[in-house]
Amino acid sequence: MSANIHDLMLGIGRAAKDAAGVLALADPQAKTRALTEAAAALRARKSEIIAANDLDMKDGREKGLTESILDRLKLDDKRIEAMAKAIEEVAALPDPVGSKITEWDRPNGLHIERVRVPLGVIGIIYESRPNVTADAGALCLKSGNAAILRGGSDSFHSSKIILDCMQQGLRAANLPQAALQMVPTTDRAAVGEMLAMSGIIDVIVPRGGKSLVERVQKEAKVPVFAHLEGLCHTYIDKDADAGMAKAIVLNAKMRRTSVCGATETLLVDKSVMKTHLPLILEALTAAGCEIRGDAAVQALDKHVIPATEEDWRTEYLDAIISVKQVDGVDEAVRHINTYGTEHTDAIVTANQATAEKFLNGVNSAIALHNASTQFADGGEFGMGAEIGISTGKMHARGPVGVEQLTTFKYVVRGTGQVRPG
Amino acid sequence: MSANIHDLMLGIGRAAKDAAGVLALADPQAKTRALTEAAAALRARKSEIIAANDLDMKDGREKGLTESILDRLKLDDKRIEAMAKAIEEVAALPDPVGSKITEWDRPNGLHIERVRVPLGVIGIIYESRPNVTADAGALCLKSGNAAILRGGSDSFHSSKIILDCMQQGLRAANLPQAALQMVPTTDRAAVGEMLAMSGIIDVIVPRGGKSLVERVQKEAKVPVFAHLEGLCHTYIDKDADAGMAKAIVLNAKMRRTSVCGATETLLVDKSVMKTHLPLILEALTAAGCEIRGDAAVQALDKHVIPATEEDWRTEYLDAIISVKQVDGVDEAVRHINTYGTEHTDAIVTANQATAEKFLNGVNSAIALHNASTQFADGGEFGMGAEIGISTGKMHARGPVGVEQLTTFKYVVRGTGQVRPG
Repeated sequence: MSANIHDLMLGIGRAAKDAAGVLALADPQAKTRALTEAAAALRARKSEIIAANDLDMKDGREKGLTESILDRLKLDDKRIEAMAKAIEEVAALPDPVGSKITEWDRPNGLHIERVRVPLGVIGIIYESRPNVTADAGALCLKSGNAAILRGGSDSFHSSKIILDCMQQGLRAANLPQAALQMVPTTDRAAVGEMLAMSGIIDVIVPRGGKSLVERVQKEAKVPVFAHLEGLCHTYIDKDADAGMAKAIVLNAKMRRTSVCGATETLLVDKSVMKTHLPLILEALTAAGCEIRGDAAVQALDKHVIPATEEDWRTEYLDAIISVKQVDGVDEAVRHINTYGTEHTDAIVTANQATAEKFLNGVNSAIALHNASTQFADGGEFGMGAEIGISTGKMHARGPVGVEQLTTFKYVVRGTGQVRPG
Repeated sequence: MSANIHDLMLGIGRAAKDAAGVLALADPQAKTRALTEAAAALRARKSEIIAANDLDMKDGREKGLTESILDRLKLDDKRIEAMAKAIEEVAALPDPVGSKITEWDRPNGLHIERVRVPLGVIGIIYESRPNVTADAGALCLKSGNAAILRGGSDSFHSSKIILDCMQQGLRAANLPQAALQMVPTTDRAAVGEMLAMSGIIDVIVPRGGKSLVERVQKEAKVPVFAHLEGLCHTYIDKDADAGMAKAIVLNAKMRRTSVCGATETLLVDKSVMKTHLPLILEALTAAGCEIRGDAAVQALDKHVIPATEEDWRTEYLDAIISVKQVDGVDEAVRHINTYGTEHTDAIVTANQATAEKFLNGVNSAIALHNASTQFADGGEFGMGAEIGISTGKMHARGPVGVEQLTTFKYVVRGTGQVRPG
């Protein structure tokens, strides 16, 4: 079986690489057309998609999947329409391929341009959300990359028909169908093959829970764009406005507790513990948030549960927050750089110098001043859509949109120059 | 022994990481000062350096090193002065850290900046050129990174004293001495340790021959900036000016045959074989270049040796060129994307449309029109200095200068914004 999977994946990989060569030189309008036709196909084949999804849902219930997984898996008219719209939004983004990042002239008359080109072949490994097939596929296509999609077995039937709609779009635009391929087996060995396909797959993007990302980061022999955890902090400085601090903390923690940009730990300067924190704790408790605090925090509010060392290292992704007193911005930065995950961290302060110290000091991909950590999102950044958020330092960092799915080449134009010496 | 090496390298790694934290926030003037003081120390301690180098040279002769390796190893007044000057040139470059790559406003009033920050810790693994200690160390320091330098055992004494001068500069500028460290052992296990130090070393830059780069690329568990080979091509199009073609080919091949940007294969459109090629072959032969050609090329000149399939895949790094007739720009691009190494490739043509086809079509990090492939160099690009040339697509591509040794973070400034929905 394993040898068959190897050959299967090699065939898919080679076809993807060939398609990537065509896609890199494709007319921007052809890519736009492929995407709008794919969106149209999704709408036209709604009942087929729902029928396929029913199969996945039935299997899922038999397998005893949790209600939250079943909810992520479920497709209905509204969700299919949202998928089609999301593809159209990607179609409408500016085409990054061929755009000049920068250009300059040399004294010898050479003109040098740094021009965006696609990365090549992108591998997407995801779990039970069938919409990733459409979202991630669209972003790869727009940025001129071929994609190999490996969805979770739970969403196999749904993903398959969504991919079929995407390929219908490619055919309508005369682009190679192999630009978007799905791994046609639920055998887990296929994931191992993808992770080892260096020379064919240029980058892997895992979309799913911590165990998936962990495996991909550990085993991949190709670069990975991902974040393992978003252990985000909000720091209330001594010069913070109390009302602003309360509004930001409440939003940063409670707007959605399951997103990677949700604040998990609140740090509070010792001088505003009594003035600013009680109202914040009250509001959090009223919103249904469990509070785990150090001794200083426990002294302020009877609802506070004692925090342990483990709490400073925990991404709850739930209505729980850890709260700690710190002695100024330096200790806040030290705490964040020790316990954080270089994802997203915020300071609330009216003091510009303190803000700069924080923004420079934290090793975060996204450092915010007077704003909610829940803004960690490609859409909120104006990128149109994101394939994920990366906490790596190489190539892509923060939200990964179409631009981050490209690399560049140098184009040098001369008039016969030769190098002296 | 291996456990000791592991502990040794871990200690060096941790010290480098701590130093990187300080360096990332260091005043630009402090970094400049460290570099100018290092250059001054190199000049002041010339005789000490030459005495250390004499030890390496003596060992090298006893070990039976080749004359060309001994020549690379040799330091004299002139070479030490060149090293000091190179450091001063890096010192004078604009500081990349903290510069805004781009910035924009969001409709909700958030102001987003993409700001350059250092990568962190850079590992340099190099062979017998002691000057790399100064060059690479200076580039890492200027870009705010800590460096762990692992030079070849042949240059151990020379590199050690050069590093000592660099650290003297760091101390004079009140910067942590651990910002530049050298592996204090010639045990090869140290290289293996470095290649596995993910989480501590952010990127490895190998500087040396193919076997070193091959090992690093194969074994490294951290990202690598490198090129394995520079199998560069020059294509003479049917619309090329004969004189320009001759001048470019002669320079691209013969200016220096040992550099990675030297042309190894010449492709010639079939319609100019008889008009353009004979003079080029004559000039190459006169310059002492061996010519290996296909049947069509052999028919033109009695000096031509028959080329085999292997020749299209060979980076000679010597006064040898392979020459092949092709049918137009499409076949030239196909040949380059099949046999090339995505390094540097050039077209000579007066036809703008043909040039664009070539520049877009080749998968090269550097694509040139009407210029010599020997311009593949950070200095020639105006970057001041380079730590090497990368043919990877991730993060850095082409010449790797101080900007390419940085990553970025997003700095988001608000006035109390929270995310709706």
